[in-house]
Amino acid sequence: MSGQRFLRNGERLDDLMRNGYRIIQRPGTFCFGIDAVLLSGFAVVKEGERVLDLGTGTGIVPLLLRAKTRGKQFYGIEIQKESADMARRSVALNGLQEDIFIVTGDLRQADRLFGRASFDVLTSNPPYIPVSEGLPNPNPALAIARHEICCTLEDVIGQASVLLREKGRFYLVHRPARLPLILDALGRGHLDPKRLRMVHSFPDKEANLVLIEAIKGVRSRLTVMKPLFIFEEQGRYSREIIEEYGF
Amino acid sequence: MSGQRFLRNGERLDDLMRNGYRIIQRPGTFCFGIDAVLLSGFAVVKEGERVLDLGTGTGIVPLLLRAKTRGKQFYGIEIQKESADMARRSVALNGLQEDIFIVTGDLRQADRLFGRASFDVLTSNPPYIPVSEGLPNPNPALAIARHEICCTLEDVIGQASVLLREKGRFYLVHRPARLPLILDALGRGHLDPKRLRMVHSFPDKEANLVLIEAIKGVRSRLTVMKPLFIFEEQGRYSREIIEEYGF
Repeated sequence: MSGQRFLRNGERLDDLMRNGYRIIQRPGTFCFGIDAVLLSGFAVVKEGERVLDLGTGTGIVPLLLRAKTRGKQFYGIEIQKESADMARRSVALNGLQEDIFIVTGDLRQADRLFGRASFDVLTSNPPYIPVSEGLPNPNPALAIARHEICCTLEDVIGQASVLLREKGRFYLVHRPARLPLILDALGRGHLDPKRLRMVHSFPDKEANLVLIEAIKGVRSRLTVMKPLFIFEEQGRYSREIIEEYGF
Repeated sequence: MSGQRFLRNGERLDDLMRNGYRIIQRPGTFCFGIDAVLLSGFAVVKEGERVLDLGTGTGIVPLLLRAKTRGKQFYGIEIQKESADMARRSVALNGLQEDIFIVTGDLRQADRLFGRASFDVLTSNPPYIPVSEGLPNPNPALAIARHEICCTLEDVIGQASVLLREKGRFYLVHRPARLPLILDALGRGHLDPKRLRMVHSFPDKEANLVLIEAIKGVRSRLTVMKPLFIFEEQGRYSREIIEEYGF
């Protein structure tokens, strides 16, 4: 398999089931979750738009958005050198160096790196857990990906606000328990929530993810969309997940 | 039918399908909606608790809560004299004068009428529509019930905060589009959202109501519950609605 020369020790090449794209992952450390896939499915990118993913990890969101949309340039910023490097190699192995640009850096400095109001679309699948809650993973890479060690929810939303042009769109996936804080931070960033979708593992279970679309500087009427169920009752993937996300 | 002597011109007596209770309604003007029934089903009232319903209309919420819980005293405040009078007659015709107390008055003054921190549970199914949105109904009674003419969302939540004892519970039904404002006002009132449930007419439609439980003065972890569907796909009431609400 020709992509093997892009791999380092312990890494694995996975098929994204979209445009023949593949992604480099490292089992146990740097792997994308369903959250990033759902975020990519939820986000709308129009022809010619510039997109930035805050905390891009191994680059799953830019890769999927490049596959499914006609956006022009897809940027990802990632603070962890190792996963940013994996993301760059995934871009190279798919031959997408003209379309996807991975920057190693702190997303809290993204406005200085890219300039204010420089994107049409922002996406983020940030760490979900405040440092005050739960024990961080002993693996530092996982701890940074899951706990708000290198950035908080407010950092992410504040940067999204500054980086978006007027009427630009922000797409976030997060935990429903953080909804009050998310809506508060969006309001302070003049990001008006327009669509919100709850994601439930099963139809009779509480929501474990929330997807949000917010518009910069435009008063929007919030719509709470039909719920998204990952599995049907019998433990099979739901029809929407199979049809829309290719699981 | 013995209740007829409680009726005035144009009024109708309806069976609440709970404890044999009946309610006086006036078709076209003072009728309860499914919103109030869902709110009563969502609210938790423990044995011996004191409950107040803000903007009680014809008293549907106190009547249903009296029927399904072991609370001790149920109060309702209503600014429209005519519906408050209907509510009092419904209380009398069910023989509940020792349990349910309807006060004609402005809910914005409820703290002066009842005293601060005087209730264990607050409920409200307030008008949903800001005065800046849409044309108020030409019927003044309907206009007041639907548009925020006599009270705003902030008035309702502010009063709930003041009227509840510490750790008391507030139950609200409202429109999902107002969620950012609801969560903001709850936060300012030290009412921490604990449970949130989206209500959809059909499984594949956007939410048209949201039910919220918030706790006074206690940090809570918000749970977004499984969605509630009113109808199944075929246009029949869903099993939960039939089993839990008796439709």
